[in-house]
Amino acid sequence: MTQQHPLDAMLHLQPQADGSFVAHTHAGYANMVGPYGGATAALLLHSVLQHPDCLGQPLSLTVNFAGPVKDGAMHLVPRAVRTNRTTQHWLVELRQTDAETGAEVVSSTATVVTAIRRATVSADVIAAPAVPPALDCPAFDARRAMPWLQRYDWRMVSGNLPATWDDGQHPTQSRLWVRDVPPRPLDFASLTALCDVFIPRVWLHRARPVPVGTVSLTVYFHADSAQLAAQGDAHVLGQADAQALRNGFFDQTAQIWDAGGLLLATSHQIVYYKE
Amino acid sequence: MTQQHPLDAMLHLQPQADGSFVAHTHAGYANMVGPYGGATAALLLHSVLQHPDCLGQPLSLTVNFAGPVKDGAMHLVPRAVRTNRTTQHWLVELRQTDAETGAEVVSSTATVVTAIRRATVSADVIAAPAVPPALDCPAFDARRAMPWLQRYDWRMVSGNLPATWDDGQHPTQSRLWVRDVPPRPLDFASLTALCDVFIPRVWLHRARPVPVGTVSLTVYFHADSAQLAAQGDAHVLGQADAQALRNGFFDQTAQIWDAGGLLLATSHQIVYYKE
Repeated sequence: MTQQHPLDAMLHLQPQADGSFVAHTHAGYANMVGPYGGATAALLLHSVLQHPDCLGQPLSLTVNFAGPVKDGAMHLVPRAVRTNRTTQHWLVELRQTDAETGAEVVSSTATVVTAIRRATVSADVIAAPAVPPALDCPAFDARRAMPWLQRYDWRMVSGNLPATWDDGQHPTQSRLWVRDVPPRPLDFASLTALCDVFIPRVWLHRARPVPVGTVSLTVYFHADSAQLAAQGDAHVLGQADAQALRNGFFDQTAQIWDAGGLLLATSHQIVYYKE
Repeated sequence: MTQQHPLDAMLHLQPQADGSFVAHTHAGYANMVGPYGGATAALLLHSVLQHPDCLGQPLSLTVNFAGPVKDGAMHLVPRAVRTNRTTQHWLVELRQTDAETGAEVVSSTATVVTAIRRATVSADVIAAPAVPPALDCPAFDARRAMPWLQRYDWRMVSGNLPATWDDGQHPTQSRLWVRDVPPRPLDFASLTALCDVFIPRVWLHRARPVPVGTVSLTVYFHADSAQLAAQGDAHVLGQADAQALRNGFFDQTAQIWDAGGLLLATSHQIVYYKE
């Protein structure tokens, strides 16, 4: 018997009679407080893709991190609000039971659009940057880092963690190769989690590790399941940058390319920062 | 008595006993079929900002255009799913009554995050492009165009509608100055609508006017109400580009700067296209 991959263990859903699911946080994806946000985003998407009514493949996902997710049981409540011929619109709530009141509290919400896609004239407008192959790039040693960082093999290209925290004004772009640890064939859930792996842009800009927390994350899926299958468990190439840091919130834009340089997903998030 | 601005007429909300609102589509913002999507997005945001429980100012908005909005009455149902000390998370549904069945159908959904923001170290990472002043740029004559196009004064900078529809491979970036017609002091609703004014990127890339429709639109608000007030009714500078066109859907990234070159908002959308 082979051991289940931590991501698959994390994504395990217990169907409930009313069409909702129960899942549990996984120690392997623990962050400073509660689970890694990318894992939560993956779970919210997964709850839609596992729903028996789900039509097609994911096109877009927006996750709003409304409050902390506590370690333990999570109640995932996906609801199809509209089904068209080739697209479907979902709302999902992630609820947890408040230990004091016994009431369910919304920890995160998501909207998901799924679609049946057909081949059309297609083009990547932005090209993957020319970088060395993944295995030629230095590995980030995550062995003593937070658990979720150990769930990835990091091959740093540029825009890494500052070597000196000088509170200066620095470029905000990062590039890296990354894949699951242990290696796992790419799917929509793991691709979603990969969209959130980048260090906070404010840490780069200011070279100061101020407290941060993602408020809203959006992923646009350009890949279909055939492109994911072709990628297998190879490293993906990620790039992230910021457009603005303003009064407690910065934005991040990100692109994820497959090993052959074709876009898999583009992503955006807005993130709280302190000071 | 001065005549009400079309945008204010469009945004007029009738409060209902259950905390929801009734509004009506406005002929001035009519698109090919139903209202201009930017106007619908503005209305969804507005319904949250007008809600008596609303905390702070908008930080992010995601609108999913689930189905066509028909001309006539709209039922806006905002719901605060979580209120924290400085942030608040909303779900909104735009429903319309199906003429045949009499049942309410969801036409659009939105998630909104509002926040009480405090001054912090801030920086625009991307600078406004150097372009001629708005009034030195050629005006696009919208007098015979669809009604919503007549609601804006267009000052074209680059990446305009193709002069020749040659079905080629062209750059996808556009820049323009734009403001409401008649001029109207900028607010969060009008800024939201401005994030959706760009012509479809696929029309530029292919120089072919294929059918299109926005599926999901996200706006990150960097401006606060003081920056909006300082802008008044001057033209804003907009820039849009695409990252990928793939199997029926392309993405669009956009930036909106104020007259002084400070970012007001950044925006993203994913758009259906045919062929």
